[in-house]
Amino acid sequence: MNKIFNALSRARPHIQDLHAYVPGEQPQGEGWVKLNTNENPYPPSPKVAEAIAAEAGNLRKYPEPTSARLRAAIGQRYGLTQQNVIIGNGSDNILDLITRCFVSEPGAGHTVPSYSLYPVVAGMSGQGLADVAFDRSMTLDVAALAATQAKVFFLTNPNAPTGVAFPRTQIQAALDAIDGLLVVDEAYVDFGGESAVTLLKDYENLVVVRTFSKSYSLAGMRVGFALAAAPIIAVLDRVRDAYNLDRIAQAAALAAFEDTAYFQKQCENVMATRAATRAALDEFGWFTYPSAANFLFTEPRNAQGESGPGVAADLFAYLKAQRVLVRYFPKHPLTCAFIRVSVGTAAEMQAFLTASQSWLNNA
Amino acid sequence: MNKIFNALSRARPHIQDLHAYVPGEQPQGEGWVKLNTNENPYPPSPKVAEAIAAEAGNLRKYPEPTSARLRAAIGQRYGLTQQNVIIGNGSDNILDLITRCFVSEPGAGHTVPSYSLYPVVAGMSGQGLADVAFDRSMTLDVAALAATQAKVFFLTNPNAPTGVAFPRTQIQAALDAIDGLLVVDEAYVDFGGESAVTLLKDYENLVVVRTFSKSYSLAGMRVGFALAAAPIIAVLDRVRDAYNLDRIAQAAALAAFEDTAYFQKQCENVMATRAATRAALDEFGWFTYPSAANFLFTEPRNAQGESGPGVAADLFAYLKAQRVLVRYFPKHPLTCAFIRVSVGTAAEMQAFLTASQSWLNNA
Repeated sequence: MNKIFNALSRARPHIQDLHAYVPGEQPQGEGWVKLNTNENPYPPSPKVAEAIAAEAGNLRKYPEPTSARLRAAIGQRYGLTQQNVIIGNGSDNILDLITRCFVSEPGAGHTVPSYSLYPVVAGMSGQGLADVAFDRSMTLDVAALAATQAKVFFLTNPNAPTGVAFPRTQIQAALDAIDGLLVVDEAYVDFGGESAVTLLKDYENLVVVRTFSKSYSLAGMRVGFALAAAPIIAVLDRVRDAYNLDRIAQAAALAAFEDTAYFQKQCENVMATRAATRAALDEFGWFTYPSAANFLFTEPRNAQGESGPGVAADLFAYLKAQRVLVRYFPKHPLTCAFIRVSVGTAAEMQAFLTASQSWLNNA
Repeated sequence: MNKIFNALSRARPHIQDLHAYVPGEQPQGEGWVKLNTNENPYPPSPKVAEAIAAEAGNLRKYPEPTSARLRAAIGQRYGLTQQNVIIGNGSDNILDLITRCFVSEPGAGHTVPSYSLYPVVAGMSGQGLADVAFDRSMTLDVAALAATQAKVFFLTNPNAPTGVAFPRTQIQAALDAIDGLLVVDEAYVDFGGESAVTLLKDYENLVVVRTFSKSYSLAGMRVGFALAAAPIIAVLDRVRDAYNLDRIAQAAALAAFEDTAYFQKQCENVMATRAATRAALDEFGWFTYPSAANFLFTEPRNAQGESGPGVAADLFAYLKAQRVLVRYFPKHPLTCAFIRVSVGTAAEMQAFLTASQSWLNNA
């Protein structure tokens, strides 16, 4: 070795302290009932495959840099213009752009618990966090949110991992109360939440973030978007990779976005399955938060009527042994007695309920 | 309007000062001979379309987060392991990761002229630049490079926009001379450059960056990679978006990478066309740098034997009026008398030469 280079000690201090985001497990092999990463159980619109095939012959040339057609279609749908839309390589990409451009002391505001990527994107930019803690009611404390004085506050609505939706009136109250940007991450809004999009015309301090990963069934394609006042979009575009979206992703997302009938039907299917699953959990006697998302956050009780971290961890492990994969968040007092179950097909949910009933019977 | 938010003044100071990268023009409509962004004139391997079609049915599920199969295949090809490889959403994504992790005072080192993205990625992270100026010989001044004391030095080899390749012995001398990281951006190396990859076993302060955009004909797909010591890759992975590459991009890149016979043939085609074009430019009496890339950087002389910025600008405009699009860099004394011509098909280069001859005849 002619030259030694100690990479970690040479990295910038905030990178040395950083822990990468840990995505949900993607099990290899067949036979899994996969209800752990909130993927849509239905495939994307058949128009997507057609659009991909049509674009696959053009790959030697660079893509259109701004995803202009997709921006225009999205802007029009929401009564806005192309200048109000940015497209990201997944909404995670957009959360990073927002952080890089606008977050400084006292750090990125977020609720606890919520999406565990916010601490990671804050750390990637050398920023800390300004926490607003939930209590078990999972109601939003607007005054506490404003008191953080965060330059950017990330709010997931419907929230994760609970599924609880905040009414638009509360979002508006938060926008009135704060001085900084409120980023409403509406990853799950198409499953029953109240969108903040209509507030954009009156609030320049609002950014609405969406994704194609959930309601459009394109988690494998990495496309997200944000809606905001044109000057905010222009700032984010300064930091966006010039060619952040490939040709196939642009074409696939546009095809999915334009097939509104298919989209609507699959969202309704998910919501109907969610309601049926929720009813079955109620019959178990388990507390479940009201969900406006494509998952349910439920507090299992065992055959002895006990709940708590040990019970939830036991059910999680039992289900996994049955090849039913759900998500368990052991690290927070408000999540450690719960499991989060993505809404799959009716058959997948039946498999989950059958395995849970078997756990109850064997406990 | 209930709430005003002045986005630009609220952005972090270095973002307020930032100018986004301006990609080469992507003309709309048919009939253009497009020789301005160094795209490969040949389509990717036919295996790519097959791989895309096979993956298009899996889009509802998240991709494998690390592009593991692609890392393994690339590592194996270069006598390295998966731990020595990172995959980016284009090599631009990787240049940004490197900057975020390792660049600090006195800024990102780069040669002038070279790839105009380096100043942008430095600015995106609030970092300045440490310049090493070329003279007309375009030879590399290793002592000047080391004297910058840059924590990260970006060196394009073969260089852009000249096409001039630096021998591996010079890269090794630079690695010996510096204390920081040398990032050798080998975007064009498959067209005749000497790769630094074999130096990785002896130099932990080396990062080799590659792209699928040029030699693999996948500019529309956004895939790049870097090779380095495992601890460097591990640091970069901390800042990488967890799902930075979509399913289709992973599959397409792997298919292109594995079809080595097709790859080799298209690279040879490009090099043969480059040699023929170069010979024709020599017959015009134009000075052209020796190119190891898929473009030629040439200094046109008009019918009166004059060269200079006015002549180059005039030829650029004349060609554009003939719908032959090349690249002109007016802002630097070493580039303003030149045009950069991507190597297209033999027919496209004939169109360029015919239009240039017509310009000579009409001058």
